[in-house]
Amino acid sequence: MHLPILFDLLGVFSAAASGALTGIRKGLDLVGILVLGAATGLGGGAVRDVLIGAHPPAFLVDWRYLTTATLAALGVVVVEYRLAAVGPLLRERVRLSTAYLTVDSLTLGFFAVSGTGKALRYGLAPVPAALMGVLTAVGGGVIRDMLVAEVPTVLRREFYAIPAALGSVLVAAVDRYTTALTPLAFAAAGLTAALRMVAA
Amino acid sequence: MHLPILFDLLGVFSAAASGALTGIRKGLDLVGILVLGAATGLGGGAVRDVLIGAHPPAFLVDWRYLTTATLAALGVVVVEYRLAAVGPLLRERVRLSTAYLTVDSLTLGFFAVSGTGKALRYGLAPVPAALMGVLTAVGGGVIRDMLVAEVPTVLRREFYAIPAALGSVLVAAVDRYTTALTPLAFAAAGLTAALRMVAA
Amino acid sequence: MHLPILFDLLGVFSAAASGALTGIRKGLDLVGILVLGAATGLGGGAVRDVLIGAHPPAFLVDWRYLTTATLAALGVVVVEYRLAAVGPLLRERVRLSTAYLTVDSLTLGFFAVSGTGKALRYGLAPVPAALMGVLTAVGGGVIRDMLVAEVPTVLRREFYAIPAALGSVLVAAVDRYTTALTPLAFAAAGLTAALRMVAA
Repeated sequence: MHLPILFDLLGVFSAAASGALTGIRKGLDLVGILVLGAATGLGGGAVRDVLIGAHPPAFLVDWRYLTTATLAALGVVVVEYRLAAVGPLLRERVRLSTAYLTVDSLTLGFFAVSGTGKALRYGLAPVPAALMGVLTAVGGGVIRDMLVAEVPTVLRREFYAIPAALGSVLVAAVDRYTTALTPLAFAAAGLTAALRMVAA
Repeated sequence: MHLPILFDLLGVFSAAASGALTGIRKGLDLVGILVLGAATGLGGGAVRDVLIGAHPPAFLVDWRYLTTATLAALGVVVVEYRLAAVGPLLRERVRLSTAYLTVDSLTLGFFAVSGTGKALRYGLAPVPAALMGVLTAVGGGVIRDMLVAEVPTVLRREFYAIPAALGSVLVAAVDRYTTALTPLAFAAAGLTAALRMVAA
Repeated sequence: MHLPILFDLLGVFSAAASGALTGIRKGLDLVGILVLGAATGLGGGAVRDVLIGAHPPAFLVDWRYLTTATLAALGVVVVEYRLAAVGPLLRERVRLSTAYLTVDSLTLGFFAVSGTGKALRYGLAPVPAALMGVLTAVGGGVIRDMLVAEVPTVLRREFYAIPAALGSVLVAAVDRYTTALTPLAFAAAGLTAALRMVAA
C-alpha cells in the first residue's frame, strides 16, 4: 500500500485544530494555543515514527508537517476571534463543541488509516500495524489532554478507541489483497470518524 | 546474561493488572480499563526499548506482549465483577488494595530484572543498565498515574524507586561473573518486590 | 558547529535544579526530589536524542549526565535545608521563587543552544533543528510539570517558548557561516535566559 501522505497531513491538520480549540477553551494565550496545537498535531505521528523506526520522524524532515499544524492552529484562532466578535455567547459555545467533535472525529479517521498504512510499509505484521494505527489516532489527543491536566478521552469514552481500532483493522486486513487502496482508505477514515461522531 | 523473556512477560502481566485495577478504582468503562492496562503493561518496556535502541520495541514484534497485557487486564475485570457480585463492600475494598499492592510490587521486581538484563545485552555499561532497569520498573506506573491525572507513586513514596534500584544494581553487578543467572534473577525480583511490600 | 558538550551539561544542571526545587515546593520526600530532578534534567535531551536518531541517548553513554543531574538535585536539597534552618520563612520563599526563575531561565538558554546545535550536527535542516532546540529547552520542564499534575509553564506564559525560539533560530541561522561559535552560543543562551527573566 503506497499510502498517500495526504492522510497523514489531514490528520495533522484536524488534530492541531482540536489542540487549538482545547487551548481556547482552557483560556491559554496565543503562544500556548499554538504550542498545544502543534503538540497535538505532531505528537501521535512522532510517537508512531519512533516506535516503528522511521528515523528521523516525518515532522522533522518534511516541512509540510509543521506548516500544516501551525496553519490549522492559527486558522482556529482567527475563526474563533471572528466568531467571538459577532456571535452571541450561546451560539459560539455550541459551535465550539461541534467544531471540536468534528475535528477530533476526523483526526481519528485520518490517523487510523495513515498510522496503520505507514506501519505496514515499515514491515510490521497486521496486528501490531493496526495497534500503531490506534496509537497514532489517539496519541495526539492523549498528549493534548495530559498537557492540560485532564484524563484523556480515550480512557473515558468507549466509542473512541473502538472506531479507531475498526478503521485500523480494516486497513490492515485488506492491505495484502490490493494496492489500489485510496477509495478504501477514504472509506475506512470516514467510517471511523462517523462512528465516533454518532456515538459522542 | 541470556535473560529469559519470561521476566519481561511476567512484568507485563502484573503491570497490566495494576493498570486495570487503577481503571476500576477510577470508574473507567471496559475499553478504558483495557487501554489503561495495555498502556501500563507495555509502556515501561516500550520506553526502555526506544532508549536502548531495540528496534522495533518487543511489543510490536512479539505477539505475546499484547496478548499477555490484554489477558491480564481482562482477568482483573472478570475477577472484580465476580467479587462485586458475591462479597460485601468492605472485604472487596481490602482485597482490591491488597491486590493492587501485590501486582505493583511484582511489577517492580520483574521489570527491574528484565530491564537491566536487556540493557546489558544491548551493550550498556552497568550503571546506565541499572538506570534502565529502574526506568522499566517504574515507567509503566508513571504512565498509568499520569493518564489518570495523579502524581506518580515513584515521586510520593521513598520505598518505590529504592527497591527497584537495589534489584537493578544487583543484576548489573553480578552479570559479568556468571551466566547462570536465573536463580539470582528470581532472587533479585523477589527481593525488590518484598521490599516494596513491607515498606508500603 | 562543534558545539561544546558544556552547554548540554549546564542545561542538565540547571534543569535538574529546577526539578528539585519543584519537588521541594510540592513537599516530596528525598527520593521523590531526586527522581524529579533527574527526570527534569535528562528528559528534554532524551526526547531530542530519540527524535534526531542519536542512539543511545547521551545520558546513557556519558556518565557525566546522570552525575550532573544528581549533584544538582542534591545541591538544591542541601542548600534548602540549610536555608530552612537559618532564615525566616518569608525570606526563604523569596529566595526559592527567585532561585527557581533563575535556573529555569538558564535551562531555556543552555538547552536552546545545545539542542539546536546537536540537531544540526545530526543533519537536520535549520528549521527543524531550531524546533528541536525549543523542544530540548522546554521538554524537561514539561515532563516536570506533568509529573506533578500541573499544566506546563510553556502553555501558560507567552514569554517562555518565544525566548527559546529566538535563541534556537539565532543558532540555526548563523551556523552555516562560521565554525567559531562559542562566543555566539554564550550570547544566544544569555539572550534567551535574559528574555525569560525580564518577562516573568
